[in-house]
Amino acid sequence: MQPAQNTGLKLATDEGGTADKLLSSVCDLMIEKESVDVSLAEIAARAGVNSALVKYHFGNKEGLYFALLARIAAAEMGSLDGLLDMPVSASAKMRLHISGIMKTYYRFPFMNALFHYLRNSGTTDQHPVSDLFVNPLVAFYRKLLAQGVASGEFRDVDPLHFYAFVFGATANLFSGRPILMLVADVGPVTKEECREYARLVEAGVFGVLGRKPD
Amino acid sequence: MQPAQNTGLKLATDEGGTADKLLSSVCDLMIEKESVDVSLAEIAARAGVNSALVKYHFGNKEGLYFALLARIAAAEMGSLDGLLDMPVSASAKMRLHISGIMKTYYRFPFMNALFHYLRNSGTTDQHPVSDLFVNPLVAFYRKLLAQGVASGEFRDVDPLHFYAFVFGATANLFSGRPILMLVADVGPVTKEECREYARLVEAGVFGVLGRKPD
Repeated sequence: MQPAQNTGLKLATDEGGTADKLLSSVCDLMIEKESVDVSLAEIAARAGVNSALVKYHFGNKEGLYFALLARIAAAEMGSLDGLLDMPVSASAKMRLHISGIMKTYYRFPFMNALFHYLRNSGTTDQHPVSDLFVNPLVAFYRKLLAQGVASGEFRDVDPLHFYAFVFGATANLFSGRPILMLVADVGPVTKEECREYARLVEAGVFGVLGRKPD
Repeated sequence: MQPAQNTGLKLATDEGGTADKLLSSVCDLMIEKESVDVSLAEIAARAGVNSALVKYHFGNKEGLYFALLARIAAAEMGSLDGLLDMPVSASAKMRLHISGIMKTYYRFPFMNALFHYLRNSGTTDQHPVSDLFVNPLVAFYRKLLAQGVASGEFRDVDPLHFYAFVFGATANLFSGRPILMLVADVGPVTKEECREYARLVEAGVFGVLGRKPD
């Protein structure tokens, strides 16, 4: 197995490791270029393989992009069920979740742009990107909100509205950054800033749910 | 002056009213089609004018789109100074602002998509879309947050983070809707839903600012 070059992206093995090398290469390039606009030639050069291997492993560039998003989603969404079953309060689970989302965006700041790229690429039928994130998150919120209502911690909130609120607020620190960098004296999001913003969102979430964080 | 056909978009006069007719036509079409993907031919047909007049009045389709966004921005951003000067508490101003944003999105649900279309159209240099919304909103938050801190109503919050939070949370009810409509049993955002979501965001905002709404 080839280790990811600087992202820490956990990669499954494949025959020869070429698929993994391509995935970690495109991930690194999107982070470095702060853009999902990466060419097949760049990806292949970074991975040290022939670009024809993208077609062999993933069909085309969209297939490679989708595989990258699916791998991130599998790691992040796979942890949601375990979170629901943890022997802690619904509020504690919510805090862990918010901080988890923000850490994921920090590791993969291109995530939202990649999501929209795939939605707009005309390959949506074959690549149901909403199934990767939206369905699992909405299902998670339905269950966690019900747990918090049952325990008396949360007031009753529409799970779809809660999803819209949390997703919008968390994603926008990163997806809104390119514009903010044009008009305000800020650079890319730092790790400390990401933590601070997670606390802000947490305070907002508990404002919505009717209670203050402990 | 030609009245807007169904949006209530306030329009300035122009010689002959053709520019106004084009602006209200493109606005109505974007609402009806739930998309900013509208052709010049459709716009001209709806306005009952020759499509060459788009070039005459706006240069090209991007120019027409920019003029539409600028007109919406002028109406909405122009009210921010008046809000700051109102003889009410910072909290009351904040509530009026949140409800104002949500009403604006309800009237012009294509606003965010139009914003991103223009940013990605490659005409950003000529058409500084961030100046229309981002600068005025960030400046407004700096002042309103300072008012609320001075009066003891708000805790101290980074205005850029507050902007990212409010913009992300409010915009996503509309910009995230096409995906939600694929995965959940919901239609387009209704007026009542928009009001309910404004109350949710308001509760979130006052969670962030350290106090509950009155």
